[in-house]
Amino acid sequence: MLDLNQLPTIPALDRAAIDAARARQNRLTKPLGSLGALEDLGIRIAGMTGVCPPSTDALGNAVIYVFAADHGVARRGVSAYPPEVTAQMVLNYARGGAVINSLARQMDATLTVTDVGVDFDFPIDLPINHAKVRKSSRDWSTEPAMTASETEAALTAGYDIVMAEKELGLMVVGEMGIGNTATAAALVSALLGLPAADITGRGTGVEGEALANKKRVVAEAVVRLPKDLPAIEVLSQVGGLEIAAMAGAIIAAASRRVPVLVDGFISTCAALVADRLAPGVRHYLIASHRSHEAGHAAVLDALGLQPLLDLGMRLGEASGGALAIPLVRAAVNVLANVATFDEAGVSDRPD
Amino acid sequence: MLDLNQLPTIPALDRAAIDAARARQNRLTKPLGSLGALEDLGIRIAGMTGVCPPSTDALGNAVIYVFAADHGVARRGVSAYPPEVTAQMVLNYARGGAVINSLARQMDATLTVTDVGVDFDFPIDLPINHAKVRKSSRDWSTEPAMTASETEAALTAGYDIVMAEKELGLMVVGEMGIGNTATAAALVSALLGLPAADITGRGTGVEGEALANKKRVVAEAVVRLPKDLPAIEVLSQVGGLEIAAMAGAIIAAASRRVPVLVDGFISTCAALVADRLAPGVRHYLIASHRSHEAGHAAVLDALGLQPLLDLGMRLGEASGGALAIPLVRAAVNVLANVATFDEAGVSDRPD
Repeated sequence: MLDLNQLPTIPALDRAAIDAARARQNRLTKPLGSLGALEDLGIRIAGMTGVCPPSTDALGNAVIYVFAADHGVARRGVSAYPPEVTAQMVLNYARGGAVINSLARQMDATLTVTDVGVDFDFPIDLPINHAKVRKSSRDWSTEPAMTASETEAALTAGYDIVMAEKELGLMVVGEMGIGNTATAAALVSALLGLPAADITGRGTGVEGEALANKKRVVAEAVVRLPKDLPAIEVLSQVGGLEIAAMAGAIIAAASRRVPVLVDGFISTCAALVADRLAPGVRHYLIASHRSHEAGHAAVLDALGLQPLLDLGMRLGEASGGALAIPLVRAAVNVLANVATFDEAGVSDRPD
Repeated sequence: MLDLNQLPTIPALDRAAIDAARARQNRLTKPLGSLGALEDLGIRIAGMTGVCPPSTDALGNAVIYVFAADHGVARRGVSAYPPEVTAQMVLNYARGGAVINSLARQMDATLTVTDVGVDFDFPIDLPINHAKVRKSSRDWSTEPAMTASETEAALTAGYDIVMAEKELGLMVVGEMGIGNTATAAALVSALLGLPAADITGRGTGVEGEALANKKRVVAEAVVRLPKDLPAIEVLSQVGGLEIAAMAGAIIAAASRRVPVLVDGFISTCAALVADRLAPGVRHYLIASHRSHEAGHAAVLDALGLQPLLDLGMRLGEASGGALAIPLVRAAVNVLANVATFDEAGVSDRPD
């Protein structure tokens, strides 16, 4: 079990690799700074991995982790879809029929789906990672979502699967769990001290009176929490099993110096939890996209992240993260493979 | 030679394919509209290609066309780089050392570089498309950039190479030409009737007094043009050989119902010219990214285009277009391959 009192140290970014990458960007045959955010991204990845230029082969080994769990609070009508959709979508992933399957194939990435708390008995031979902590978290609108040991077990499930991955050059993290935008909204509102009404959004398509109800449910749960509760206790009180597992997975990747492509609102919320539990995690995060979900901007700001994509998406299941894989690979490929002015015999600008 | 009086008709988008694609998007196992701009893109491509779902194999056949030419106006100090860089970069492309080479390899796309007017004698065995109309356009700050027949020849060069491509499912178009942001600024200012000072930007990195000079050069040329000059004559007066070739290439692709991924400011300017010469071209355009170059937003608006990426890039050479290839493929892969609610046995939202 992951010892929460002795979480792994997150290594500092490698300054020498960052300086070398920045100097190299400026010698490549392109106008200075002309690749914009991709140049910064390449430099950051050099710092994360500690190598300049970063290994393009390593970035080829991308693994997409989708963690799935149910939420007791889903019975409070906070989602446009019925709770059984969580299990149905896990079966859809196992059969290869979902959006994330299509994107994983296109990006030549491995997809690993983990059941950390779905309210369904999956056949044991279903090709997923079976790591159920319990069937669904409890309804945090009336009681704590998870006990301390359940929270720890879910964090450990995410941590262990990432530590066990032999070849891991780039991690993408995402989720499936009907009701989890409400859960993430409660977590973010409590952790950042922001009004629940601003953070709570439409999720899969909640509107009108149902959205007002969702905001009320979140606000009432957050207001009951003591101020300045440690992040791990906030997670137990109003979190979810797949969010805890994502946090554990992110901590594991950062401890291994592996860049983490974070998906949307719920994944970024898990990244915020991870950074609170293991300070420094944020330096290994790459925000894949700006979700259409209301609370995402606040979490991105809190972590100091600028997303690569802004396509009005709000699907989850790591879809935004998968879409950003080619951008991350491009940043590294350019830094590693493009000729310098000297090598190519191209005239640099006169200084 | 492409007969400018009998340009090919651009086919209308296929309404039935669009309607079928829209209906299919809403049955796929994802919340309604949750893929944002990617859903619209998939629907548009169905309309362009006339097939629903569009063929994922066809989109695999992506060809990146880079057209290169020099500009007489470059001698007026409108670029941060010396004019010989155009030829040097073409040699860099031929050796595989530039950013676009790295991106083309990553995206599994064919890269074709065309010399339509570089001021250099390339060895005939250099693996590029040799289609030089003349060595450099004339300096449009003192005389017309091209004669009518040179303009027609450059348009034809672009048109012919695209028509000759047997397997073409997705076209990306970009350019190389020291001085061509000034040329594109003059074209856009004249075609859209916008102040040259607003459209003229930093290009490869022009600043301070040099930028003021660049704006002056552009403004003086535009002010001399008669009002309401036909697009083809504006192109001859203040255009460039690679811009004309790009316009021809874009017309060819649209006439073949092939989606066109437009790169940045200069490519979008060529797309504007193409749409003026062959109305309807705009329906086949996909804006890859929002360039950092000043005038890009105005041209995108004029064509009704919303870019997919916004990464602060300003490199050209089709780099933004290449980066957007995976997004276009993803839009089509999702539409073609994701299971419907019925197929997957997933509960749709109650209506």
